[in-house]
Amino acid sequence: MTDNDLTYLTIAQIEPLIATGQVSPVELTQACLERIRALDGRLHCFITLLEEQSLAAAKRAEEAIGEGSYLGPLHGIPLGLKDLYWTEGVQTTAGSKIMAGFQPPQDAETVARLKAAGCVLLGKLNMHPFAYGALGVNPDYGTPPNPWDTTCIPGGSSSGSGVALAAGLLPAATGSDTGGSIRIPASLCGVVGIKPTYGRVSRHGLVPLSWSLDHPGPMARCVEDCAILLQAMAGHDPKDNTTVELPVPDYRATMRAAIQGLRIGMPRAFFAGIQPAVREAVEKAARILEELGARVEEVDAPGPDDIGPVVSSIMGPEATAYHLDMLKTRQADYPEDVLRRLLANLKIPAVDYVKAQQSQAQLTGRYLELLQTYDLLLTATEPFTAQPLNRTSVVIDGQERPYQGMLTRFTNPFNLTGMPAISLPCGFDAGGLPIGLQLAGMPFDEATVLRAAYAYEQATPWHGRRPPSLAM
Amino acid sequence: MTDNDLTYLTIAQIEPLIATGQVSPVELTQACLERIRALDGRLHCFITLLEEQSLAAAKRAEEAIGEGSYLGPLHGIPLGLKDLYWTEGVQTTAGSKIMAGFQPPQDAETVARLKAAGCVLLGKLNMHPFAYGALGVNPDYGTPPNPWDTTCIPGGSSSGSGVALAAGLLPAATGSDTGGSIRIPASLCGVVGIKPTYGRVSRHGLVPLSWSLDHPGPMARCVEDCAILLQAMAGHDPKDNTTVELPVPDYRATMRAAIQGLRIGMPRAFFAGIQPAVREAVEKAARILEELGARVEEVDAPGPDDIGPVVSSIMGPEATAYHLDMLKTRQADYPEDVLRRLLANLKIPAVDYVKAQQSQAQLTGRYLELLQTYDLLLTATEPFTAQPLNRTSVVIDGQERPYQGMLTRFTNPFNLTGMPAISLPCGFDAGGLPIGLQLAGMPFDEATVLRAAYAYEQATPWHGRRPPSLAM
Repeated sequence: MTDNDLTYLTIAQIEPLIATGQVSPVELTQACLERIRALDGRLHCFITLLEEQSLAAAKRAEEAIGEGSYLGPLHGIPLGLKDLYWTEGVQTTAGSKIMAGFQPPQDAETVARLKAAGCVLLGKLNMHPFAYGALGVNPDYGTPPNPWDTTCIPGGSSSGSGVALAAGLLPAATGSDTGGSIRIPASLCGVVGIKPTYGRVSRHGLVPLSWSLDHPGPMARCVEDCAILLQAMAGHDPKDNTTVELPVPDYRATMRAAIQGLRIGMPRAFFAGIQPAVREAVEKAARILEELGARVEEVDAPGPDDIGPVVSSIMGPEATAYHLDMLKTRQADYPEDVLRRLLANLKIPAVDYVKAQQSQAQLTGRYLELLQTYDLLLTATEPFTAQPLNRTSVVIDGQERPYQGMLTRFTNPFNLTGMPAISLPCGFDAGGLPIGLQLAGMPFDEATVLRAAYAYEQATPWHGRRPPSLAM
Repeated sequence: MTDNDLTYLTIAQIEPLIATGQVSPVELTQACLERIRALDGRLHCFITLLEEQSLAAAKRAEEAIGEGSYLGPLHGIPLGLKDLYWTEGVQTTAGSKIMAGFQPPQDAETVARLKAAGCVLLGKLNMHPFAYGALGVNPDYGTPPNPWDTTCIPGGSSSGSGVALAAGLLPAATGSDTGGSIRIPASLCGVVGIKPTYGRVSRHGLVPLSWSLDHPGPMARCVEDCAILLQAMAGHDPKDNTTVELPVPDYRATMRAAIQGLRIGMPRAFFAGIQPAVREAVEKAARILEELGARVEEVDAPGPDDIGPVVSSIMGPEATAYHLDMLKTRQADYPEDVLRRLLANLKIPAVDYVKAQQSQAQLTGRYLELLQTYDLLLTATEPFTAQPLNRTSVVIDGQERPYQGMLTRFTNPFNLTGMPAISLPCGFDAGGLPIGLQLAGMPFDEATVLRAAYAYEQATPWHGRRPPSLAM
């Protein structure tokens, strides 16, 4: 097995090798570090790389496992954290030089849980600054290029996570998702990411973008790995009073059940303004799910045009409220796009925010009603595949349109409603760029989302495909 | 017993008479109607008086009781509802001619519960239009004058409820309290009103002012009556998802326990900018509670100056969001003061609202911390007694100040924090105007609030005093 092979293994594949001593966490961590050293000069995935600390942690894991104290599937697994997760004593920048050097006093709750499960912290990953952008570009720390075509955007805001996974730099990462920031890079980079239900995963110790809409979650190279990571991250946290006390199911176990009889709705409004190749891939995915036993139907649901403005009216003022003090002292140091958005939000009237909250309640009610009849909703994650970094528009239905705002069209409805939603690969366009399938479910029913995603993934050949462009 | 005596009885006093057939609900309702006919031409308490319906309901109650089907302490008790409680098929105006003729399709949940407990609905009571004002004046339906001095304001927004109780028009009423609208008229009119904990009483079927701060609650002439009415109104309602599933204690039973050892804090910030007579009365009330076994101490808590602007930034946009559609079509029909406020709120930025919500969380946290050490907080309800209708300023500490904004200074902190708070009489100033004592407690611990209020009330002679000015 070459190092390259080792770093491309999924957690589910490595786990038995580590548990039985066939692969040492040190060997695995060294393989990751070597590949990072070779590629990250171009890929810009890491804002902070913890070479010594990760090897020391891997060594401790190796010893513990050698002594028979195996903690489970994450023991010895190298992990990258989006750089808005607080890490005790380790710089946390939220992707901006404004916060460079900030050393949080403690780990985020999710970080503490992932470490307790045995993860080896490899470093902190690049992101759109302050998570306030869907492109995944970063003027301060460099933009991670899309591994499938390095002239294209990675998608954001969790761009470092998406690119590092696709490029085989590590097997496990975290993201956060306020309008799609886990699912967008997952879709454009051809990896898997799940935005759990609002209230399922603690937000303690995350630099916020918008507390009504922020969702932390895992990113990985397959559905099972997301299930493993989510298992460690999920559950009530007294330090975050938006988390609920519901028990967390055993996702890896429930995931393997058949999907016979599962009712899946395809909301019509999500199939307009979409590239033909994407539409075809998603419709094919629906047929595969049908073949696996699901019943798939077209349904009517509130669409992106109704939902987008509501999301903006909530996200904007919350984002700017968080940044007010920093805007007073460090305005010149903000990236231009983030600053423009933050300042524009100052003009949103409170009445609009209040009306948007009412709309949120109404729209959520309409989705919950739909979920009385359907277990899942199926859409494309993105209306198109990754677009060139040097362009700002995309042609769809013969019309040239600015594409940045379109990146969150299919994802942010599930931030507004708080529903769990996964993105996983469902094929490639003619240019070899990955296409993402989105499955969204009932609040707190991540289990069914993972189950359908796993069944689909097992039935398709995308699983494990690697970007061709990244020779070492 | 004269009719006048009958209408001034408390629910607790009438209850055994009705239960044993010594007084008929019809006789009681007739006595109320007679006093209303005699006085309400000047008092303007009723926007809608239900003469026939109330007598028919009283007759049904009389028959049921005669047949041995006694429902409990509210059976046959005449009740007035602030005119923002929906009543099926009965005009509900929210105190404005804009809504005149509106016949709600169903009863508010609290109204349904009070009716199910046996109350006889006497009519709908006057209020500051749309509950958006603390004076209790009303250009559309006339201003209820203060029964203790008819040249003075009644206090609002539940002015009809306060005046009707003080004037002996009825024994039971409801109010609603967004910044003090139950406690202000209770204090200025010398009656009792409790604002329950946010989430304790359903808001289903109430015309809203501000859903973050609105609290429905009972008003009556003594603490025990408030306990009886709250018992019927309180508890989870699936139609209002802000209500909690906590059990409702038996308030009338818990109320009678001793207050030995109760820890009461007097927040210093609430004793500045206050009339000397009010300060003396409240400090005397504190001494009486000490004599009854409580331990009273001065404490530091966030004060009105910190809290007022936060309340305004939340209440304003929520109020205007509700009124947006009506403002488009009926702007000319709004009372001038309400319109001015609603339009000014359009200029509040969303970022201010969001920051105010954060401040609300922080201030609430500080109060909850204080309630680890103290069972109750004790303040004056109002910094002064009822002021003349034809003046707008009051002299305090040698300074002349506009008084309208000061009416909510001591009350709205407990709307922001959601804590239960009662106002009850604690004496009179030199001009014979009543002074209100406020006791606030731990969220969902109305029982302790009522217990201390009852103990104090039983130990003082204010209970049952009537305004001298209202000869029939």
